[in-house]
Amino acid sequence: MCLTTNVTSECETASNSRSRQDRDNLIAISSRLRTGRALTLDVWSTFNAANFPPDCINLGQGYMNFSPPQWVKDAANDALMSVSANHYSHPRGRLRLRQAIKEFYDPTFHRSLDVDTEILVTSGANEGQYSVFAAFLEEGDEVIMFEPFFDQYLPGVTFNGGKPVFVPLHPPSGAKTHNSSEWKIDIAELRGAITEKTKMIILNTPHNPVGKVFSWDELNEIALVAEEYNLLVLSDEVYDCMVYDKKEHIRIANLPNMWDRTVTTLSAGKAFAATGWRVGWVIGPKALIDPTLAATTRIVFCTNSPLQEAVATGLEMASKHDFFENQLKEYEEKRNMFIETLDHIGVSYCLPEGSYFVMVDISRISMPDDYPFPATIQGRGRDFKACWFFAFEIGVSCIPVSEFYCEEHCAIGENYARFCFCKDIDTLRCAMDRLKKIANYLV
Amino acid sequence: MCLTTNVTSECETASNSRSRQDRDNLIAISSRLRTGRALTLDVWSTFNAANFPPDCINLGQGYMNFSPPQWVKDAANDALMSVSANHYSHPRGRLRLRQAIKEFYDPTFHRSLDVDTEILVTSGANEGQYSVFAAFLEEGDEVIMFEPFFDQYLPGVTFNGGKPVFVPLHPPSGAKTHNSSEWKIDIAELRGAITEKTKMIILNTPHNPVGKVFSWDELNEIALVAEEYNLLVLSDEVYDCMVYDKKEHIRIANLPNMWDRTVTTLSAGKAFAATGWRVGWVIGPKALIDPTLAATTRIVFCTNSPLQEAVATGLEMASKHDFFENQLKEYEEKRNMFIETLDHIGVSYCLPEGSYFVMVDISRISMPDDYPFPATIQGRGRDFKACWFFAFEIGVSCIPVSEFYCEEHCAIGENYARFCFCKDIDTLRCAMDRLKKIANYLV
Repeated sequence: MCLTTNVTSECETASNSRSRQDRDNLIAISSRLRTGRALTLDVWSTFNAANFPPDCINLGQGYMNFSPPQWVKDAANDALMSVSANHYSHPRGRLRLRQAIKEFYDPTFHRSLDVDTEILVTSGANEGQYSVFAAFLEEGDEVIMFEPFFDQYLPGVTFNGGKPVFVPLHPPSGAKTHNSSEWKIDIAELRGAITEKTKMIILNTPHNPVGKVFSWDELNEIALVAEEYNLLVLSDEVYDCMVYDKKEHIRIANLPNMWDRTVTTLSAGKAFAATGWRVGWVIGPKALIDPTLAATTRIVFCTNSPLQEAVATGLEMASKHDFFENQLKEYEEKRNMFIETLDHIGVSYCLPEGSYFVMVDISRISMPDDYPFPATIQGRGRDFKACWFFAFEIGVSCIPVSEFYCEEHCAIGENYARFCFCKDIDTLRCAMDRLKKIANYLV
Repeated sequence: MCLTTNVTSECETASNSRSRQDRDNLIAISSRLRTGRALTLDVWSTFNAANFPPDCINLGQGYMNFSPPQWVKDAANDALMSVSANHYSHPRGRLRLRQAIKEFYDPTFHRSLDVDTEILVTSGANEGQYSVFAAFLEEGDEVIMFEPFFDQYLPGVTFNGGKPVFVPLHPPSGAKTHNSSEWKIDIAELRGAITEKTKMIILNTPHNPVGKVFSWDELNEIALVAEEYNLLVLSDEVYDCMVYDKKEHIRIANLPNMWDRTVTTLSAGKAFAATGWRVGWVIGPKALIDPTLAATTRIVFCTNSPLQEAVATGLEMASKHDFFENQLKEYEEKRNMFIETLDHIGVSYCLPEGSYFVMVDISRISMPDDYPFPATIQGRGRDFKACWFFAFEIGVSCIPVSEFYCEEHCAIGENYARFCFCKDIDTLRCAMDRLKKIANYLV
């Protein structure tokens, strides 16, 4: 996700048009905006299509260039034609959608979810996660996030007084093609990161951008730590319907003793190719959902009603349409086409078991020393340079992975560029054709 | 707005299912949830339709029982049929909507608004206001709100570290029918409330629930205070297209020197009878909009796309359809029908010059001493009792006004019940018929 935000240092103060003592004329911004990289030029702005040649194919930002299914859009229109679905929903979400969520997720949560207490509809998974941070974080609470991390976690945590603590996922050594499952957390590192202030662990599986689908053993190790130190686990599983190679997506909420300390966030935008609908949901025990509800009610009051109704239809009728089976097959075919091209070129990559991202190893890409990189790229990692170079020389844009690490660990990400394959097949074919040119720059 | 949130004390802790030392088994909620009445049983829960006889007519919660205009709903459907309007919008809002906002509001802001820097689309006015609080409030900053106040301001301020400071609007003395313009701020009281920590004044015009439309002179007095003490003004003008009796709605942003210190929040939900669409916008100078953008980008990332497109059509085509003129006429007719009934009954009220609320004076209502009020009503003001009594004995629900005051000032609101008239004419007629029974309880 994420487009340009264009927030510059100019917004650090607001000047009054009259001339009086300078300090009197400023309306200061909150110090929270100076945290979580909220005011810095973000990677989405630097690698925005507007900065690239007009015919550059955008495989940077993670959104589809195709529509939600017609029968789901028809349901949205049906809802618009009613009266009630144009007005406020209950802050918990519309009952019909909560019932549809229950029916859909009961089997994979291995329990009978309570629609009144264990399911909360949010204005996208992003706002659901923000509400969890608002509901549980106290000033100074430490939140562990695994790197690379989805960029929105950082300000979500710091805006609510939390302190991010970073634990890296380590890739296998060497610049060879490997499976995303080879990226590993060092549990000793995780344990070493725990302090008296640790409150929460953010987990993301399937993982953006690595594509890693955490195994039962890995989740169990994390779960034991969470239990031992009484930590809340925020499990971001928005890519749970994009898991390939018949691998099983495992929910940490299902591990022994974990239900009571886990909130799982999910997304209609990802599930139904509708990233602009801003409908997501949070599943967890009443004791964790009630405070999250109290937060979201004050932040957005409720989520848009007509698209909640449409998503309810989506979940209710998905099975009849074999929707998720077919969608998964299409995404898997796209992934396979993508990696076959990479194999053909001879460039290394990380094979994703989940999500719609592929990280390409750019450590062997050679770029001219005098290439005219702009100021925003100078001084950044070689992944920044490679992504810029690709956009201009190959005609395909992607996102540098070092941005998803803290400064201390950013060298781990510097070898990778993230490409997303949630595009229609013609666009992907054209992009693949262009990517073959990478071979010219391999050393 | 506001429905039941059902947040109870049970959400104050999350218990682990295993039995270990008690304190180890709790995941504590953030202390921010203990502020701003976020966990108390709110008035919307107490006066929820679910608690009343099924045939009770709901004039409590402020939402319409009619649809947005068909041509605006058609535009929503058109947007759904495209690809891009189903995907992420720019966090600032879709360019087409920002351009429509500019064209629509330029005349009443008396300036050429910059679509790139002075207009921000938010997920409802509520989320826009929350983002302003997040962007500007520092721990301990004081925020002045005029009572009665819209209940969401309170937790919006306290969740972001602010301290609410209450300055009451005073009604005229005596229990007689009067104009909402007779509710006055005592400027000496406002000045007395200012401290070194004061950061912001929240203004609401037209005012919910009083219906007051602030005059130029009143706004000027507030503006002079804001200027003298270098305060930010958050002006909630979501009812700006419901101003009656040919009175002019004046924007405080237009007063001398006020543009640079004012953010104005507006709502498509109110303007187009689409409270469930969750589309609003914030207008102000770049120096105030940029930080608000930085906040909203992290909180919700962006607002739902298809309904932004529909609202753009709404603003673009409103004039061609004489939409706002006709809607205003209809609301004014409903208001007039409502107050004619009240005149006929002989009950006093506050005649609203704006909004879709009427406050009825309940000080002369006599209720049996032994009436079976539930525990949630016992110990509350007589307005709570009267509203409950009306729901069961008259068959029309409304909202007690003392809830919109701090404890110290709640006696001012105790004489009033708020009825909303944003309902179709048949529902209102039926409600009016029932309300005639009030005469039986007048002393």
